[in-house]
Amino acid sequence: MAMKLGFIGLGIMGRPMALNLRRAGHPLWVHGRRAVTMEPLAAAGALACGSIGAVATHAEVIFVMVSDTPDVERVIAGENGLLSHLRPEQVVVDMSTISPAVTRRLAQELQTCGVEMLDAPVSGGEVGAIDGTLSIMVGGQKATFQRIKPLLEIMGRNIVHVGDHGAGQVAKACNQIVVAVTIQAVSEALTFARGNGVDAAKVRAALLGGFAASQVLKVHGKRMLDEDFTPGFKVQLHQKDLHIVMEDAHKLGIALPGAALVAQHLNALMGSGDGELDSAAIVKIMERMAGRKT
Amino acid sequence: MAMKLGFIGLGIMGRPMALNLRRAGHPLWVHGRRAVTMEPLAAAGALACGSIGAVATHAEVIFVMVSDTPDVERVIAGENGLLSHLRPEQVVVDMSTISPAVTRRLAQELQTCGVEMLDAPVSGGEVGAIDGTLSIMVGGQKATFQRIKPLLEIMGRNIVHVGDHGAGQVAKACNQIVVAVTIQAVSEALTFARGNGVDAAKVRAALLGGFAASQVLKVHGKRMLDEDFTPGFKVQLHQKDLHIVMEDAHKLGIALPGAALVAQHLNALMGSGDGELDSAAIVKIMERMAGRKT
Repeated sequence: MAMKLGFIGLGIMGRPMALNLRRAGHPLWVHGRRAVTMEPLAAAGALACGSIGAVATHAEVIFVMVSDTPDVERVIAGENGLLSHLRPEQVVVDMSTISPAVTRRLAQELQTCGVEMLDAPVSGGEVGAIDGTLSIMVGGQKATFQRIKPLLEIMGRNIVHVGDHGAGQVAKACNQIVVAVTIQAVSEALTFARGNGVDAAKVRAALLGGFAASQVLKVHGKRMLDEDFTPGFKVQLHQKDLHIVMEDAHKLGIALPGAALVAQHLNALMGSGDGELDSAAIVKIMERMAGRKT
Repeated sequence: MAMKLGFIGLGIMGRPMALNLRRAGHPLWVHGRRAVTMEPLAAAGALACGSIGAVATHAEVIFVMVSDTPDVERVIAGENGLLSHLRPEQVVVDMSTISPAVTRRLAQELQTCGVEMLDAPVSGGEVGAIDGTLSIMVGGQKATFQRIKPLLEIMGRNIVHVGDHGAGQVAKACNQIVVAVTIQAVSEALTFARGNGVDAAKVRAALLGGFAASQVLKVHGKRMLDEDFTPGFKVQLHQKDLHIVMEDAHKLGIALPGAALVAQHLNALMGSGDGELDSAAIVKIMERMAGRKT
């Protein structure tokens, strides 16, 4: 059954995700800060809106896909944001990767107006967004999740309801912790091999068959060996995500010594102007420590 | 073609490995420090020897599978060790996990007597040893490797010649770095989930489909959730292996900040009497930091 949908945020991820919703036959109202981002959507039959309010007026379910916590706060609770336009029974689905704590607060503010919110951050990158094969980690009320799930299935494949409001963001944060610290693990192993004068490519091959095997050893390990840091997932986004993790850990009093270490390495990469590289570039920090120019 | 083989060290790993060689039809001379360990081998037709010298006298190729660096030094270079008995053309294959630097030195000492050495540490544990499905990482001369490979294929499946003397030990060290730091990564993610009041089992499930996926998330992550730390691979062995790594890193001047952190967590587990647990118990350190009694 066709539903009136809204989509706010038409960047590298949001644009293809919105296009998939439109192509599935749903009437779609879209808003992007830069008008040019709305053009491919309008060409596909979506209605380009000059304001968030216009989207809120027409759509029953409104997806948000913006960069960072303050952006979501602005879209939902800012001046002329969703909160000043929404009516009861509407649903907001925030697919951005942001703070779990802020997510819980925004969900509560929306609930006061009778509006349900889901946090539904994704992993799988631009390719997953285009192909509709994203992993989607969802927090919020189970009944709302069930209602929205058919729409999420247009954009993704591995869709898990993790728990209450914020639980999707927590799962995404866990994902970013594991990926970052595993990149560090692989970086150190390759550095140890090279420091011993041993062919790091052969070591990676020997390790792929056993308990050291991981997606990171396979994909990021290959990038490190090829010294090809074309993203993939950029240092600046991984740094942002680990900043969310460490802020939450600070507030809740959770010790994460490994993640803290890697967050510093991402900071160093930002400082050396490497924010646009894939976060496999963490290996560069190991190489710089060893005195190699990278 | 049947070859006269020797096997020194008949512990949990060595015994089934030696049995597989014997069952493949090779005449086999064995020596274990405790006479009782030789009984199942003798029952299978191997010749139990009271000394290392007796093995050295009869066998063309001598396998060594003992616990730690000093044990291998004793077997090869100690009083009445292999060096005082071997003749040119014999081959020593050390399958223990020990120091790459000591391996290089022992290989050189053996070469002086015309004896070739391979370092061929394994991963895959007791199950792999019994089933003959070990991963074997080999260092040493390529020609020697080619000659010995059919014998290694009796004990293992994924057999990689990594490079010159010591390269097998370096690859094994890299394996232990990656596994240890990835266990830390998964421990922190599950701790972050719990600290946020989110179901850690659902988070693991959500993460298994994407870039966070690894053997460690699958196997060790499950152990953490079940709080079942039956080994698997024991804390005391992982601690020993990371000690080898950190000693080598110290000597060669290689910075491994992540591995150093996890080495400390393994030290803490040894101090609390948890050396017999699986090294997935690293998660306990995160839980203790959070004030939970474990």
